[in-house]
Amino acid sequence: MKQLTVILILWCGVIQWEAFAHQSVERWKIYEVTLKGADKGNPFVETELYGCFYQGTDTLLVKGFYDGDGLYRIRFSPPNEGNWQYHTISNQKNLNRKRGSFVALPPQKSNRGPVSISDVFSFTYADGTPYAPFGTTLYAWIHQPDSLAQLTIHTLSKGYFNKVRMCVFPKSYWWNQREPELYPFEGDVQSGWNFVRFNPLFFQNLEKRIAQLDSLGIEADLILFHPYDRWGFSKMDSVSRYNYLDYIIARLSAYKNIWWSMANEFDFLEHYTMADWDNLITYLAEKDPYSKLRSIHNGVIMYDYSNPKISHVSVQTNDISSIPLWRKNYQKPVIIDECGYEGNVPWFWGQLSPETLVSRFWEGIAKGGYVSHGETYLTHIRTNQRVEENDDVLWWSKGGILRGKSPERIAFLRKIVESGCGNQVDNDEDYLVYFGTNQPVLHLFEFSGDAQYEITIIDTWNMTIHTLEKSYSGYSLVPLPQKPYIALRVRKK
Amino acid sequence: MKQLTVILILWCGVIQWEAFAHQSVERWKIYEVTLKGADKGNPFVETELYGCFYQGTDTLLVKGFYDGDGLYRIRFSPPNEGNWQYHTISNQKNLNRKRGSFVALPPQKSNRGPVSISDVFSFTYADGTPYAPFGTTLYAWIHQPDSLAQLTIHTLSKGYFNKVRMCVFPKSYWWNQREPELYPFEGDVQSGWNFVRFNPLFFQNLEKRIAQLDSLGIEADLILFHPYDRWGFSKMDSVSRYNYLDYIIARLSAYKNIWWSMANEFDFLEHYTMADWDNLITYLAEKDPYSKLRSIHNGVIMYDYSNPKISHVSVQTNDISSIPLWRKNYQKPVIIDECGYEGNVPWFWGQLSPETLVSRFWEGIAKGGYVSHGETYLTHIRTNQRVEENDDVLWWSKGGILRGKSPERIAFLRKIVESGCGNQVDNDEDYLVYFGTNQPVLHLFEFSGDAQYEITIIDTWNMTIHTLEKSYSGYSLVPLPQKPYIALRVRKK
Repeated sequence: MKQLTVILILWCGVIQWEAFAHQSVERWKIYEVTLKGADKGNPFVETELYGCFYQGTDTLLVKGFYDGDGLYRIRFSPPNEGNWQYHTISNQKNLNRKRGSFVALPPQKSNRGPVSISDVFSFTYADGTPYAPFGTTLYAWIHQPDSLAQLTIHTLSKGYFNKVRMCVFPKSYWWNQREPELYPFEGDVQSGWNFVRFNPLFFQNLEKRIAQLDSLGIEADLILFHPYDRWGFSKMDSVSRYNYLDYIIARLSAYKNIWWSMANEFDFLEHYTMADWDNLITYLAEKDPYSKLRSIHNGVIMYDYSNPKISHVSVQTNDISSIPLWRKNYQKPVIIDECGYEGNVPWFWGQLSPETLVSRFWEGIAKGGYVSHGETYLTHIRTNQRVEENDDVLWWSKGGILRGKSPERIAFLRKIVESGCGNQVDNDEDYLVYFGTNQPVLHLFEFSGDAQYEITIIDTWNMTIHTLEKSYSGYSLVPLPQKPYIALRVRKK
Repeated sequence: MKQLTVILILWCGVIQWEAFAHQSVERWKIYEVTLKGADKGNPFVETELYGCFYQGTDTLLVKGFYDGDGLYRIRFSPPNEGNWQYHTISNQKNLNRKRGSFVALPPQKSNRGPVSISDVFSFTYADGTPYAPFGTTLYAWIHQPDSLAQLTIHTLSKGYFNKVRMCVFPKSYWWNQREPELYPFEGDVQSGWNFVRFNPLFFQNLEKRIAQLDSLGIEADLILFHPYDRWGFSKMDSVSRYNYLDYIIARLSAYKNIWWSMANEFDFLEHYTMADWDNLITYLAEKDPYSKLRSIHNGVIMYDYSNPKISHVSVQTNDISSIPLWRKNYQKPVIIDECGYEGNVPWFWGQLSPETLVSRFWEGIAKGGYVSHGETYLTHIRTNQRVEENDDVLWWSKGGILRGKSPERIAFLRKIVESGCGNQVDNDEDYLVYFGTNQPVLHLFEFSGDAQYEITIIDTWNMTIHTLEKSYSGYSLVPLPQKPYIALRVRKK
């Protein structure tokens, strides 16, 4: 019987080889190896499984994971085109020594590959297209019923944003009192969670959402830990944290649109020390085979973003003017991932006017950073009910539809940035000057040399663009309309 | 002959005694002793003259000054009602040992006396009426032709402001290129200034302006040194600085509406060290017989306002949110005497929208401080002329008329504050909650105890006031109109 099993395994291996031999996948997309194995003990942590992928002398070792029902998967994202071969390594015999090959094809136009850092302060897709993050916030959208999540996807398909901040764990907070349908672990609040037995259905749903975002060209800035918890996920013991990271990396790191946000408001998580965060970040950096973008987001205490394992600054602040200082100090791209949300809730962080939020986006770009969006509009205004009992669908957490006036204006800015306009420090041939709420009637440039400049007056609120006919050089006084929210685009001719 | 002179002097003394015996002046106003003396040598510094004023055991020694044309004056402001006597002391015989008496009468209602500190963070007139500074900026208004100064006074008479920041020395800056009619010293730019020979006409004009302000109930926040100089006044040698202070104190300290601002943007004055400023402030504190309010204003470096000789914080910043920190650190009233100006000039500090400036006033009051106004509207917008050649009359420097939208709204706030409303820390029974550019649709109060509160919704921009009929206590959700620039006035019933 034992001999038969071995033969069967070998035979299966051959079959698999045959089956995969002519398979192909686009470069940067996911090639998935699925293996049937045993479902005994705790396959989530007891079964070790790796895929070793190689092309010439290039080798990538990728961890597999257990997906329930006796199924094991290894996900690989080919960083280069051409033929790839692989074999598996496992402590489960029927998962070990599987071999296969496939072809990584040239990417379709919509597939630009993962985003990474470019020129110290900027981002680029792997295909060389510049990427400027215009993010929004959907902390708990994956924990909502499918119909609501589909509506969210529909809203996102309108193209305002190209990054979404979202949590793995459900969120317990005002306007977030409904129970999610799925939890990441086996167990429940009453009897406790088994942090080393994951719930594949939960993660399959998460992946579905990440893939949906990817199909819309949206990066998934995935928050691995956060403090808004009534279930106990923020109290995970320290060994389980690392198992959780292993599982997350194995399942998700191959998604080309994945960014890692180690935590939201790390300093509000009571059970973690600063050393814990540093260690978790180091672990993630070592284990992620693709070195996806990696940061951590703060509440009120600034993280030391000079940590070399951090790819970019991801901060909470309403002081956009700090961007140049942070660029200087950290020598990394700066994203203000939380600067308050457009909305009307009774807390200062969620009652920004659309004018203010849009203005922060423009100021952010002009100062050499990036700003993220969020929306918190109550739709049922009741003064006879405690706020925490209000169950409105607020975009910033649950998704749904956007009610605010900022998204279309953010998209307007995004178009301008994607047409090559930036901040003066990084791009002195095509840059923005932004006046915020100020209302100058003249602006003075003192251009050096003989260079001629084209100047475009942009009304950032009314979304109008007017290029001045005159060409400017030297001491130049440019007439402005004396109203707030005006920007100039300055282009060297 | 000598004997005759002595007799004449004694006889003159008797005459003077008689002449002054039934004179009177309101408490806190100025009783002036005028004496004819010699005009030889340098009477500004060589003649010593003091008036010793006494009432019972209270004695005040007040320095006199030379006012040109052989006239010497001693100005005394009686701090108390009732009979006062005086005699003079001088190294000039014909100024020495003059005696007199007068009655200090109860003040008229409009005469509230000088302003001083009250309850650590606030101000009060001497008669006990609370004073909240709503200042404006008129750096060089005293150096303008009389017709323009009279127009400024006419504008000020409309009652927007109750404090004016103004310089002794003329100001050289954009839009300030015309020569003043009078200079504070004898001499000129070419041949140099005689810093120990003052120009009485200059100071008489200055006093006239101070008195005009006083008649309108406006405090004169007098700036003694500043950096915007093309004449050389900012390069006065260090001995002359003290002579200048002596002369200023002798002439002006009796004016009940005088405040001392040692400098504007002290850190931009190249010829002064920090120790110089400390010493000048100490000197002023020791020599001013009335201990008028005393501060110093910064450019970019913060002065250490914990100096006990400083009565209040007078800073430049656009960050109104620092007020609570400065209150805590310095334990003094905080005035943001420069937070930018409403206007349209090509520099960030002078192109605030009226909405922004008004908002800073409200935020300042709500945070426990005070904010000052300034206005910089160009009226001739020319792109074919260098900005520095523009000779427009900008309120912030020259005065004239106000063109902006902030003054009437500042006056609206002033009325509310003068009706007893303040910040929550200093006055938890009648205070403001201000939302700035935020747009909440609800605000949550959690009032403690059984106290009932009346809540008034104030649209600070449209200047409307709506008191809610309902009385609030405990957990209270107050409906708001979801638009920017809303404040709540909360009054305990």
